Amino acid sequence: MNQPVASYVLTASCPSRSGTVDVVTRFLRESGGYINELNSFDDELNQRFFIRTVFRLEADSEFDRDVFCQQFSERSKAFEMEWELTPLDYKPKVVIMVSKYDHCLNDLLYRYRTGNLSVEICAVISNHTDLQSLTEWHDIPFYHCPITPSTKAQQESQVQSILDQYQCELLVLARYMQVLSHEMCEVWAGKAINIHHSLLPGFKGAKPYHQAYNKGVKLVGATAHYVSDDLDEGPIITQGMETVNHTYYPEDLTRKGKDIEAQTLARAVQYHAEKRIFLFNDKTIVFERS
Amino acid sequence: MNQPVASYVLTASCPSRSGTVDVVTRFLRESGGYINELNSFDDELNQRFFIRTVFRLEADSEFDRDVFCQQFSERSKAFEMEWELTPLDYKPKVVIMVSKYDHCLNDLLYRYRTGNLSVEICAVISNHTDLQSLTEWHDIPFYHCPITPSTKAQQESQVQSILDQYQCELLVLARYMQVLSHEMCEVWAGKAINIHHSLLPGFKGAKPYHQAYNKGVKLVGATAHYVSDDLDEGPIITQGMETVNHTYYPEDLTRKGKDIEAQTLARAVQYHAEKRIFLFNDKTIVFERS
Amino acid sequence: MNQPVASYVLTASCPSRSGTVDVVTRFLRESGGYINELNSFDDELNQRFFIRTVFRLEADSEFDRDVFCQQFSERSKAFEMEWELTPLDYKPKVVIMVSKYDHCLNDLLYRYRTGNLSVEICAVISNHTDLQSLTEWHDIPFYHCPITPSTKAQQESQVQSILDQYQCELLVLARYMQVLSHEMCEVWAGKAINIHHSLLPGFKGAKPYHQAYNKGVKLVGATAHYVSDDLDEGPIITQGMETVNHTYYPEDLTRKGKDIEAQTLARAVQYHAEKRIFLFNDKTIVFERS
Amino acid sequence: MNQPVASYVLTASCPSRSGTVDVVTRFLRESGGYINELNSFDDELNQRFFIRTVFRLEADSEFDRDVFCQQFSERSKAFEMEWELTPLDYKPKVVIMVSKYDHCLNDLLYRYRTGNLSVEICAVISNHTDLQSLTEWHDIPFYHCPITPSTKAQQESQVQSILDQYQCELLVLARYMQVLSHEMCEVWAGKAINIHHSLLPGFKGAKPYHQAYNKGVKLVGATAHYVSDDLDEGPIITQGMETVNHTYYPEDLTRKGKDIEAQTLARAVQYHAEKRIFLFNDKTIVFERS
Repeated sequence: MNQPVASYVLTASCPSRSGTVDVVTRFLRESGGYINELNSFDDELNQRFFIRTVFRLEADSEFDRDVFCQQFSERSKAFEMEWELTPLDYKPKVVIMVSKYDHCLNDLLYRYRTGNLSVEICAVISNHTDLQSLTEWHDIPFYHCPITPSTKAQQESQVQSILDQYQCELLVLARYMQVLSHEMCEVWAGKAINIHHSLLPGFKGAKPYHQAYNKGVKLVGATAHYVSDDLDEGPIITQGMETVNHTYYPEDLTRKGKDIEAQTLARAVQYHAEKRIFLFNDKTIVFERS
Repeated sequence: MNQPVASYVLTASCPSRSGTVDVVTRFLRESGGYINELNSFDDELNQRFFIRTVFRLEADSEFDRDVFCQQFSERSKAFEMEWELTPLDYKPKVVIMVSKYDHCLNDLLYRYRTGNLSVEICAVISNHTDLQSLTEWHDIPFYHCPITPSTKAQQESQVQSILDQYQCELLVLARYMQVLSHEMCEVWAGKAINIHHSLLPGFKGAKPYHQAYNKGVKLVGATAHYVSDDLDEGPIITQGMETVNHTYYPEDLTRKGKDIEAQTLARAVQYHAEKRIFLFNDKTIVFERS
Repeated sequence: MNQPVASYVLTASCPSRSGTVDVVTRFLRESGGYINELNSFDDELNQRFFIRTVFRLEADSEFDRDVFCQQFSERSKAFEMEWELTPLDYKPKVVIMVSKYDHCLNDLLYRYRTGNLSVEICAVISNHTDLQSLTEWHDIPFYHCPITPSTKAQQESQVQSILDQYQCELLVLARYMQVLSHEMCEVWAGKAINIHHSLLPGFKGAKPYHQAYNKGVKLVGATAHYVSDDLDEGPIITQGMETVNHTYYPEDLTRKGKDIEAQTLARAVQYHAEKRIFLFNDKTIVFERS
Repeated sequence: MNQPVASYVLTASCPSRSGTVDVVTRFLRESGGYINELNSFDDELNQRFFIRTVFRLEADSEFDRDVFCQQFSERSKAFEMEWELTPLDYKPKVVIMVSKYDHCLNDLLYRYRTGNLSVEICAVISNHTDLQSLTEWHDIPFYHCPITPSTKAQQESQVQSILDQYQCELLVLARYMQVLSHEMCEVWAGKAINIHHSLLPGFKGAKPYHQAYNKGVKLVGATAHYVSDDLDEGPIITQGMETVNHTYYPEDLTRKGKDIEAQTLARAVQYHAEKRIFLFNDKTIVFERS
């Protein structure tokens, strides 16, 4: 029998239907769950329902996680609910992939070290060795998995076995400058987060910040999204944006852009860890915190 | 029998207890309510529960508002719930009180005229006549209720009868430069919103923006709050704040401060109209929209 | 002889060269100008110098505007300076063009009426009559200039004669849903401001907010820019951006987008009126105020 | 003779007078200085002039720093100018004082390590040993200077000799929970930065975030200021503020407050390092960067 845990997050989504909230709240009531926080949203256009609730167990509740799950499965089956029960203090196992840029990795490791990121960083994988010492300085295993066009399949298989070894639950591409294969994208759909710059207007091709400088943009930003086949166009999780002015040369824009990338990626990882994100079709629903 | 209305907002609060969410959601389920959006929060420190839900009626529901209210009263009695049912498109009747400053009144009337404030502005009352023409330009009745220390009780009674005449539900003090009497504060507790500047550090006495200039503040702001006996210190609803720099002379700070006052007051009125605010003890819980 | 005016704005730009600041400040010194504020920037990559200064005349100065201009022309000639001298309280003559959307016009007229826009709005021109009453309510002349593909040249000539009649100095396209001709763009280069939505990623084609909804964007914004042949891609003046979440249906995104459009356009017009903007190549340098 | 350095920052302030800008720009011109950026402001109410300019030396300039300083002293004497010439890449020597809270120290060290703080951190001094290992992990000397009411003078003398030893130019109180003596404040006036929380309304006494929670504040923030005798009330350098809502319990408010404290303090230190701050009377003029 599972040891009862103080608090849980229950998330669920399903096609819109009468009674969706009720099936969750009634079951929690009957199971001795005391609801601390509940947010639900029924998307009328997409006809999809989403709910996230944080509950603790009543003092006298005889909670058995397996029983809970089995019974909730039965209850929610008619609603075709996809759901998840997670201890509130659970930290998902994360593997980070990087290339040579260190700003996102640096920031993630810093938040992790100072207790401000609710994940367990298990390993860092890179196709280069530049970030090995930074990683190891934080007592985290570093794996060098070089890649060439001809060894891509082989490298991804090597990466996958590292992910398997750590039972990785969330893959974070912290400026990993390689495109994942279609297969890899499929396996990690909804479980891999990427970050890229966001500029208005959008700039194609190389040196986006130089283009932005030439265009005199007044805002620079970043978008964190789930990885999809459509490079840099997966479902958006969160976006950051800050004002700049004419005193920002391309290298200044780049530096500010990197700052925003790091913050935005960290926020996305934290939202994922807190089970605040629902993925549906090509978009996300995020019960963010003000 | 009441004509069924498409959508409602149900808000409720009560002491923290097991089953608070369930009593609401189960009842809505049984009454043919389809929940579009639900937010609940159980404040563990204050031991108080809050819930706001937007629901529409199922197509086949035989909804009778009176019956609904009577039955929900019975159901929720054991929880000592304070609750309210409001049609989603209901616009509360508002009376605005002003003195001579026009920035807040101007802004409220503008939003009202352009359909961006979900209230019905019934009348404007002032102890001066400066804002009469602005008010009447918007086809809203204006009442001049002058006040002196010796006529305060009499003036407030005059004001109250105007409020009664319009069945005023929300009193908005849009830079009304008089202190309401203790009695008036009590009658309108939780139903009267005031706005005042907010500066860091706080400045006592006259000409706060001049003091702020002398202190070189880098932020100016405003706080909207429910009126209480404690002048300028009632329960906070929402606060606005913007950066300023050395190029802001006192009159520039004042102008920016007024802008923020107007925006912040309008936001508070809108939150109130949308039933997003719960008042408990000396504080508010606001289910704001991002 | 010109009547001396209290304060002036002098703006200038030229190719980067030694002594650019000095030629301006020395001349002001010799002309009895007392500098209140000065900002200069030398863009090393574009090799272009920009300066904006606000000065008032010394009490005993024998300032003659014509003489000042003639002498400064001579002094600055060697630097190939493009410059402008404007009384600080000068309000440029503005004509606004609109189609059917009223949010930007409404906002500009409101700011104008309340003394928060340093321009003189001379007329509103539209290819429709929907906004006639709003315009006339503000005592501003309204011109209906309908347009069809076959009458475009003729309509633009009609528009141009209205602009001439009012000696228009700034043309504001406040959601004017017609593309200006190449000739019109050339004539009004640097003197016509347009506004359009800004979404990340950029969406092509119709109903951008519906596309944004389907993509689950977390930010919506707007860009104000000088009109150029390259539709919606002229030199950026200022950009606004705000967060949104899943509770924003397409119509909510649209409403928020319109709010940002109105604010962003008004800010651009104000910056232009205050002579804060320099146009160079395809970009702007803006000495904005915090 | 000094080795010429590529770029310098020249800052100056003096009583308002005709010709203040000119005396600076003319001298730079004559000295072979090429102005990259110049900002000046003449505060009419305080009758004080401020200027900051970044310049590089012309290729053929025979720049001698000592000669420059001697000559500029002579030129500016009549204006009673207080001025400073600093190489653009100069990193002022900083000593940080802390007690037990690590959030500000942690953040400063992180920015320092990643090259995002333009100072040289020479040492950390604390009245406790809690933060010794963190400091030493960054290869920075740590000094334990315990303090009791009876040993205060002695401890401050010990601290002062450490500051002397490192030729400390900027003292940063990164949550140092001791009040500096009047003498210490005088010695370090304008050269010591402190950080404290900022809440609206202001809360006196212990546990400010608990008070803020009870009051339901919707904004939390922090103020960085120069140290003065008036505890927590010295001249403001920069302020940060973020929105919070009801889901923030006192410990959440505290965590968010700490984040803002760390960011705000770092920004103040960076502005100081970049010579962007002028101190005059009880206020600062900051030529901040957007």
